[in-house]
Amino acid sequence: MVKVGVVGYGVIGQRLADGVALQKDMELVGVADVAPTLSVRALKEKGMPYDLYNAVPENLKLFADAGIPVAGTLEDLIRKVDIVLDATSAGVGAKNKELYQKYGKKAIFQGGEKNSVADVFFHGYANYEKGLGATFLKLTSCNTTGFIRAIDCLDRQVGVKKVAVTIIRRVSDPGDYHRGLTNALQVDKAPNHQCVDLMTIMPHIDATGILVHTPVTHGHIITLVITTKRKIEKAEALTYFKAHPRIRVVKLADGFLGNASLFKYARDLGNPRGDMYEIALWDETIVNSGDDIMFAINVPQEAVVIPETVDGIRAALQMQTDRLDAVGKTNAYLGMGKWNV
Amino acid sequence: MVKVGVVGYGVIGQRLADGVALQKDMELVGVADVAPTLSVRALKEKGMPYDLYNAVPENLKLFADAGIPVAGTLEDLIRKVDIVLDATSAGVGAKNKELYQKYGKKAIFQGGEKNSVADVFFHGYANYEKGLGATFLKLTSCNTTGFIRAIDCLDRQVGVKKVAVTIIRRVSDPGDYHRGLTNALQVDKAPNHQCVDLMTIMPHIDATGILVHTPVTHGHIITLVITTKRKIEKAEALTYFKAHPRIRVVKLADGFLGNASLFKYARDLGNPRGDMYEIALWDETIVNSGDDIMFAINVPQEAVVIPETVDGIRAALQMQTDRLDAVGKTNAYLGMGKWNV
Amino acid sequence: MVKVGVVGYGVIGQRLADGVALQKDMELVGVADVAPTLSVRALKEKGMPYDLYNAVPENLKLFADAGIPVAGTLEDLIRKVDIVLDATSAGVGAKNKELYQKYGKKAIFQGGEKNSVADVFFHGYANYEKGLGATFLKLTSCNTTGFIRAIDCLDRQVGVKKVAVTIIRRVSDPGDYHRGLTNALQVDKAPNHQCVDLMTIMPHIDATGILVHTPVTHGHIITLVITTKRKIEKAEALTYFKAHPRIRVVKLADGFLGNASLFKYARDLGNPRGDMYEIALWDETIVNSGDDIMFAINVPQEAVVIPETVDGIRAALQMQTDRLDAVGKTNAYLGMGKWNV
Amino acid sequence: MVKVGVVGYGVIGQRLADGVALQKDMELVGVADVAPTLSVRALKEKGMPYDLYNAVPENLKLFADAGIPVAGTLEDLIRKVDIVLDATSAGVGAKNKELYQKYGKKAIFQGGEKNSVADVFFHGYANYEKGLGATFLKLTSCNTTGFIRAIDCLDRQVGVKKVAVTIIRRVSDPGDYHRGLTNALQVDKAPNHQCVDLMTIMPHIDATGILVHTPVTHGHIITLVITTKRKIEKAEALTYFKAHPRIRVVKLADGFLGNASLFKYARDLGNPRGDMYEIALWDETIVNSGDDIMFAINVPQEAVVIPETVDGIRAALQMQTDRLDAVGKTNAYLGMGKWNV
Repeated sequence: MVKVGVVGYGVIGQRLADGVALQKDMELVGVADVAPTLSVRALKEKGMPYDLYNAVPENLKLFADAGIPVAGTLEDLIRKVDIVLDATSAGVGAKNKELYQKYGKKAIFQGGEKNSVADVFFHGYANYEKGLGATFLKLTSCNTTGFIRAIDCLDRQVGVKKVAVTIIRRVSDPGDYHRGLTNALQVDKAPNHQCVDLMTIMPHIDATGILVHTPVTHGHIITLVITTKRKIEKAEALTYFKAHPRIRVVKLADGFLGNASLFKYARDLGNPRGDMYEIALWDETIVNSGDDIMFAINVPQEAVVIPETVDGIRAALQMQTDRLDAVGKTNAYLGMGKWNV
Repeated sequence: MVKVGVVGYGVIGQRLADGVALQKDMELVGVADVAPTLSVRALKEKGMPYDLYNAVPENLKLFADAGIPVAGTLEDLIRKVDIVLDATSAGVGAKNKELYQKYGKKAIFQGGEKNSVADVFFHGYANYEKGLGATFLKLTSCNTTGFIRAIDCLDRQVGVKKVAVTIIRRVSDPGDYHRGLTNALQVDKAPNHQCVDLMTIMPHIDATGILVHTPVTHGHIITLVITTKRKIEKAEALTYFKAHPRIRVVKLADGFLGNASLFKYARDLGNPRGDMYEIALWDETIVNSGDDIMFAINVPQEAVVIPETVDGIRAALQMQTDRLDAVGKTNAYLGMGKWNV
Repeated sequence: MVKVGVVGYGVIGQRLADGVALQKDMELVGVADVAPTLSVRALKEKGMPYDLYNAVPENLKLFADAGIPVAGTLEDLIRKVDIVLDATSAGVGAKNKELYQKYGKKAIFQGGEKNSVADVFFHGYANYEKGLGATFLKLTSCNTTGFIRAIDCLDRQVGVKKVAVTIIRRVSDPGDYHRGLTNALQVDKAPNHQCVDLMTIMPHIDATGILVHTPVTHGHIITLVITTKRKIEKAEALTYFKAHPRIRVVKLADGFLGNASLFKYARDLGNPRGDMYEIALWDETIVNSGDDIMFAINVPQEAVVIPETVDGIRAALQMQTDRLDAVGKTNAYLGMGKWNV
Repeated sequence: MVKVGVVGYGVIGQRLADGVALQKDMELVGVADVAPTLSVRALKEKGMPYDLYNAVPENLKLFADAGIPVAGTLEDLIRKVDIVLDATSAGVGAKNKELYQKYGKKAIFQGGEKNSVADVFFHGYANYEKGLGATFLKLTSCNTTGFIRAIDCLDRQVGVKKVAVTIIRRVSDPGDYHRGLTNALQVDKAPNHQCVDLMTIMPHIDATGILVHTPVTHGHIITLVITTKRKIEKAEALTYFKAHPRIRVVKLADGFLGNASLFKYARDLGNPRGDMYEIALWDETIVNSGDDIMFAINVPQEAVVIPETVDGIRAALQMQTDRLDAVGKTNAYLGMGKWNV
């Protein structure tokens, strides 16, 4: 049993912990955080299903005052694990890396860190082999993780030459009071970093795009204009998408009207936290633009990187050397891929 | 075992079904709806934990096309149960009532129906005794259900004479694309119906108020200015609120900054659908206005009426004749009241 | 002096009236509406700069009660004018057309009407010549009007073969309480009608696209991926855009961060109603996607169709037979094109 | 002619400049700011109706690069005026005060500064006399300015003993990308500062209240529960409100549905920037809560403090010694009070 620790128990860290706990070949040793946040308070109210480690010794009293049991320090956690999933705020991971190195432990960082923090910039489906045995991996960020699924899916079938993306981004997560945008759409400088990241992971593709922030909290919607090596029509594309365990093909006609429908559906499914690991892809948006193919996907930003991060554990620790074996294990334990029939 | 059916599997109906299923002295026979909505599709993807009955014979093909098994007609469901929880759209309940009467079954309607649909306008804590043995109950709506908890709590301890409320209302539920409000606050005619409803349930109180709609989806926030029979200070009020199993006293200082924090917390707790049955009451908002007491609560509109509706089953079927016995059973099965310590 | 009447004094109608009033070669005879709406009440508070005609005889008392003087009936207005600008709600224009025919008057309809209402589907820059002498014109809708400006601009310089658009649409206008979307992005079936409309106006272009509604009120943001006959770089494209009197090239670096910045800027400029006739085009979003060019524009939905509608008057009444003469007059009277230097 | 300078050309500063320019007994010498913001760029595009002074010498090149003419330094402006209206960001005013003292000039600060910056905390209607001849005044903030109008109005007629307010606050201004709140209501600690401020201005009143932030940009809505010395009914209260030149009584029935309707109406009126100086008070929200009176107002946060700041100039420079003479001049030049008939 591979031993895993999660450092940073925020939006991503909580979900990493839950996702690892579902893997039958992994053991979640515990999670670390710096203060009794709402998420940590919820952990306590749930009865501490995971041990909590305190990352800032001076804050021990804060945990005590909140009645939250602490199992040790951050270093205690690091000592006990084979690999750390670092889900701290952007920039903190780079500092934590020194600790991971001190104890000779592997680590996987999230998309907010700089690429230089890691040996390999990683996506479970697109470049699994690059991660095999690596010491430090960095995951693609939520949007990049999401659209690479669809692009890699087509690339392996027909070859992809070029992509132009428009990211319609949710500006903050549910419950986030630090960021926000009120009655405004905000435009970023082009090309957006997600396209640059895509080209780092899949260097044979020419990618560019524009990102627009919108005042909503559930899910990015992305349109993609993809130039494939040979023209494909909607029916063929659908065949590939429906066979992908991390893509859910949905229909407007069934009531999936937008990102809020997907969140509602995940809540109604009884998914913990109303989360969804899969991207959704709207059937009725698939059209040809000349010889290109265009469509829209939904990226559930809170949970989408969990499967690929778990793939990263498999790669770094060489649990599976074959890409499809690895992602297949992750998918099976997370219950993915049962919907497209 | 009391047999219960739920008619209308929307926002409220789903949660009623889940809540009844948790009651160890009740059996959920099934749910009925008119079409394969997203919620019904989720029920199927979950493996049909409840039987589904089709309320519109002509729509049978729609369910078949969606691969959703149907256990029978609406009348089949009604025949099998002791009591129906009607959670259909406003106005439909009044029509369904004829069916319930035809089969001699009791029913509980939700707040969207007219008062005349029922014999008793009901709130589990405030007027349980009125519901004992009644054939048709109507529940108070979400806001009224929520603030009556706090008002009744004070009324039973010190007596309440007068209430002035300001309801800051969420305009639509998550995933609702039919209603909406964009960058606007909308004012309703005063007094709002919730105050009139309060006076129907608690006729010894003089209530009025103003309602303002806001473009958010999670939870109404209500401020109350309450004239009690004798002046009470914050500390005394807190004692009463903390002892109430359907009120959660929260602090801004702990990170409960608004309605979105409560939704986040419920998700982090792992509550199904991220739901919360309890109202929250902010510690740091309790102040005296002269001899009156003023404070703010959060009403989680999707789930708040579930406990009081379950209380209604207990009253209508005379499962418990004592108010505190009844609400105590409901609370125990729903896991309420463990948080204020 | 050409005599013009405006029927329907809503969001578009008001701005048409204001825009016509600025044309030194046109006379605004008056406006017609059906009830004392807020806009009509504002007209009265301003001292009735335009005469108001009552379109529904039964509502005369409503205007009287509100103290609003009425100059006559809808038919009175029609009789006095050479051409009617119909800005009524979708579908009403088709009915009004019978009246316009009865009195032998020309009319211009807005984008909400079906194409069949008119002889010519019109855009001032793209197909002015088609409108010359026509009896009934229909204007392109706001988004189509906006992006055709940019597409036609490139088409006349280098030729455009293909366009893939992503429309990030504002869901309702400021002050609109009838429509709305709360914390949700909503996806439409592809291709959106705006692309179909583009191909009707410019049949040599292959266009498709996806539209996503967002919960904001000021301005649509559209990304365009355009395949030109020969590859052009950003610098060349900028030259063409800056020379177009109905395009304002803006920079993120100057503080134009999104659609709300443009609305703020128009208010600060002192533009009546904070309106903007021009589309904005973000300098920093212009990138090449392979041989294609991609960029983002802002369409101020309330006012963008005014110039092209005024062009329509010029065409229908053959005030100018040359396209550039006509749009030049409109631009000069509206004060357009002074910003790109 | 009294000479006035405005320091800080942001949301408030621009409107102060416009408001002063309308006063026939005042001369606007110029405005100062630190950088070529959008508002300064708009000033240039309008043809520099006011001179601009540069408050940060190092930034001179920025203005030059943007082609914006600069008339001098901040100190140049201060030297030329009798009084400065300081509308800089919170905290900057306290530093600027040293300059004003150096040149022996009077100044009026806005609500974001600490009370200690000024000799008198000022509201034109409530305590004009206190400001007479003062060197440094601080204006009440937008919400306090707004509700004091209504409270002072009743207080002078029947006496006010106690007030409980609920402020439903807009979270950011149109065009503001620095603040925001997405799908959330945020609660502040009670009592809010606005009530404390009210008691500083009107010490005979007992005030408290709760403030909730909402994700909208146009106008705060406030409910007030007011205990008057003798009970008054709606009809009597309306008489007083309608006689107040800075209160506009509006009706839901006329289409004034919320804060967005008021912004729309102000735009339709042709008010510069769509601004409104007056608070609105909804007729249909006036109700009795026992012997108290309750109602809702709208505070247009961008422009509401302009009249009272202009009153402050009159007081500080002793232009009028009588309160009603002073506010009457301000009202006349701003065109206020013509609507309630």
